[in-house]
Amino acid sequence: MHTGRLEAFSDGVIAIIITIMVLELRMPETANFSSLLPLYPKFLSYILSFIYVGIYWNNHHHLFQTIEKVNGKILWANLGLLFCLSLIPLTTAWMGENHFAGNPAALYGFSLMLCATVWTVLVQIAIKHEGENSKIGQALRNKTKEYISIAIYLMGIIVSFYLPIISIIGYTVVALIWLVPDTRIEKQLK
Amino acid sequence: MHTGRLEAFSDGVIAIIITIMVLELRMPETANFSSLLPLYPKFLSYILSFIYVGIYWNNHHHLFQTIEKVNGKILWANLGLLFCLSLIPLTTAWMGENHFAGNPAALYGFSLMLCATVWTVLVQIAIKHEGENSKIGQALRNKTKEYISIAIYLMGIIVSFYLPIISIIGYTVVALIWLVPDTRIEKQLK
Amino acid sequence: MHTGRLEAFSDGVIAIIITIMVLELRMPETANFSSLLPLYPKFLSYILSFIYVGIYWNNHHHLFQTIEKVNGKILWANLGLLFCLSLIPLTTAWMGENHFAGNPAALYGFSLMLCATVWTVLVQIAIKHEGENSKIGQALRNKTKEYISIAIYLMGIIVSFYLPIISIIGYTVVALIWLVPDTRIEKQLK
Amino acid sequence: MHTGRLEAFSDGVIAIIITIMVLELRMPETANFSSLLPLYPKFLSYILSFIYVGIYWNNHHHLFQTIEKVNGKILWANLGLLFCLSLIPLTTAWMGENHFAGNPAALYGFSLMLCATVWTVLVQIAIKHEGENSKIGQALRNKTKEYISIAIYLMGIIVSFYLPIISIIGYTVVALIWLVPDTRIEKQLK
Repeated sequence: MHTGRLEAFSDGVIAIIITIMVLELRMPETANFSSLLPLYPKFLSYILSFIYVGIYWNNHHHLFQTIEKVNGKILWANLGLLFCLSLIPLTTAWMGENHFAGNPAALYGFSLMLCATVWTVLVQIAIKHEGENSKIGQALRNKTKEYISIAIYLMGIIVSFYLPIISIIGYTVVALIWLVPDTRIEKQLK
Repeated sequence: MHTGRLEAFSDGVIAIIITIMVLELRMPETANFSSLLPLYPKFLSYILSFIYVGIYWNNHHHLFQTIEKVNGKILWANLGLLFCLSLIPLTTAWMGENHFAGNPAALYGFSLMLCATVWTVLVQIAIKHEGENSKIGQALRNKTKEYISIAIYLMGIIVSFYLPIISIIGYTVVALIWLVPDTRIEKQLK
Repeated sequence: MHTGRLEAFSDGVIAIIITIMVLELRMPETANFSSLLPLYPKFLSYILSFIYVGIYWNNHHHLFQTIEKVNGKILWANLGLLFCLSLIPLTTAWMGENHFAGNPAALYGFSLMLCATVWTVLVQIAIKHEGENSKIGQALRNKTKEYISIAIYLMGIIVSFYLPIISIIGYTVVALIWLVPDTRIEKQLK
Repeated sequence: MHTGRLEAFSDGVIAIIITIMVLELRMPETANFSSLLPLYPKFLSYILSFIYVGIYWNNHHHLFQTIEKVNGKILWANLGLLFCLSLIPLTTAWMGENHFAGNPAALYGFSLMLCATVWTVLVQIAIKHEGENSKIGQALRNKTKEYISIAIYLMGIIVSFYLPIISIIGYTVVALIWLVPDTRIEKQLK
């Protein structure tokens, strides 16, 4: 089975996820700028989640460029990833509405950790399918970046019960680490 | 007429259906975990429906891989399937909001049975169009799996008025039966 | 400029239009079937509009299959069509909420007439661009079906102030006329 | 990396942005035409924003037709553009709800200026990537149209605090300037 339609479907789902978050940012009824101020935690949460979903799209794009055929396991791991990503608008909304309070910041970190874990599983299944010596097997053999990210999420979740602002900084740092599309794959493709 | 655009349009509609269900999971306004607890029936319903729509996407993908050209009948049978799938977010919401009560569980089963029936009709039209000896005619000649599923849905609907939890288990069993993408088509393609 | 991306973008917009109508069908909070009854005018409106948007997608698909390159005029006529189609969820919701009352039935007919008019303009621009002797010029020279439809819409709008049920029947008849994908184009393609 | 999936993803996001604005136009509960009247500022705002998003889609389409491969910078500049475009439904809703009052008209102009600025940056990055002598480098060397637009937005923002109606006229004039898809690229492609 070719990857074309899997990519198209994933593009559609990720496009919807990244855009419906904006529906949470309901504008105030009064027409002065000061009434926009209370929106700032929601807006900051939206920016962070937009970047995260953008990163997943970038990496998804890179990953499936190296894969030519998919099997049932990859299909379901991919659907699992889309499911986890679909929870990000929810945890983002909860965190934004509650001004980065402890519990919502922990749940937000948990949803990010869930995505990162399922992503690592998807990559692992893809490597197994393509073979250790394939392009992707060579490119993604080293998973230090994945493990560091998951470790920071875990610390973020624990810390959020005491100092949620530190957790948010942690989540932002992970986003910055991943901002650059996966150079491991780009190198391998060359 | 080629199948390319039919697949792209169906991908779009199915991507929206699978994602808008998450909009039903409105987060509570308070910031403690205990306020998330009442969401669990909605969340479980969401997971089950996500898997169901995912299964339909998988099978749709497999089906149209064997079909090269489409006619008016296939176009409309496909639109009929998309219509039935678009009802799943509604019946899911009703079931989740009412904690798997009898009537909503029956309607949920009915919407699943509707999808399964229209799917079987679509497959039948596709076989007629491609010919009994075509790849798809050979692969999908045996419809035992389809008939068993529809029978379980029917029993689920009846049982839901007495023991809705049994119906939900029945619907989940059908989902598990279909989790594996259609190996009949994969075998035939080889 | 090739038609590929215009088709993909139109597919996306039409897929969203056809699916967001279902968001209007908000399920009742109580769990018995009788509470679903008041939804029937909304549900019937949804079915009719789903068929209409499905017809436009079918015909759009057929039209752009005969066109190879697009210019600025076709791009904007197509965006104009998408704009008119995007009004159908609104007029459908108004008609459904008000149980096919006079004014909403008239506005619904008006939105259908608007779509049909812009569609005819789009076809005319496409014929001009491709030439009278092109496939599409030959196939769509005869516009009787378009003119009859617009005439029925016009009558429907007028009648709706006295007997809205007759208007709805008229709109349904036009849908039935168009249910079969455009055989004029299929003949010409052969 | 090829542009195919970047185009498909952008098409999806832009299709959603252009369509969710219609969700803001909630129909009144009463069934007479006079109750539709208060919707006119929202409706006019919707038309203007629909045209703007349509223009961005047209230009996006033209731009990526001249680009063959993308790098990480282009990916993120493109995501930045999609982010800015996703704010248009919000500023449109605020402006429509407040009948083109001063502050909302200023914020609307600001969101348009943001999009125009990020668009110019994206074009600049694309030129740098493809080379000054490439098709796109030649076609988009002259940025007078971009600078005039940004200047009008800036004036519109300032004027909106005194005479918001003049700002709206200014924004409409910029839309008209850009209505014709980018002939600079079309000339160069020939």
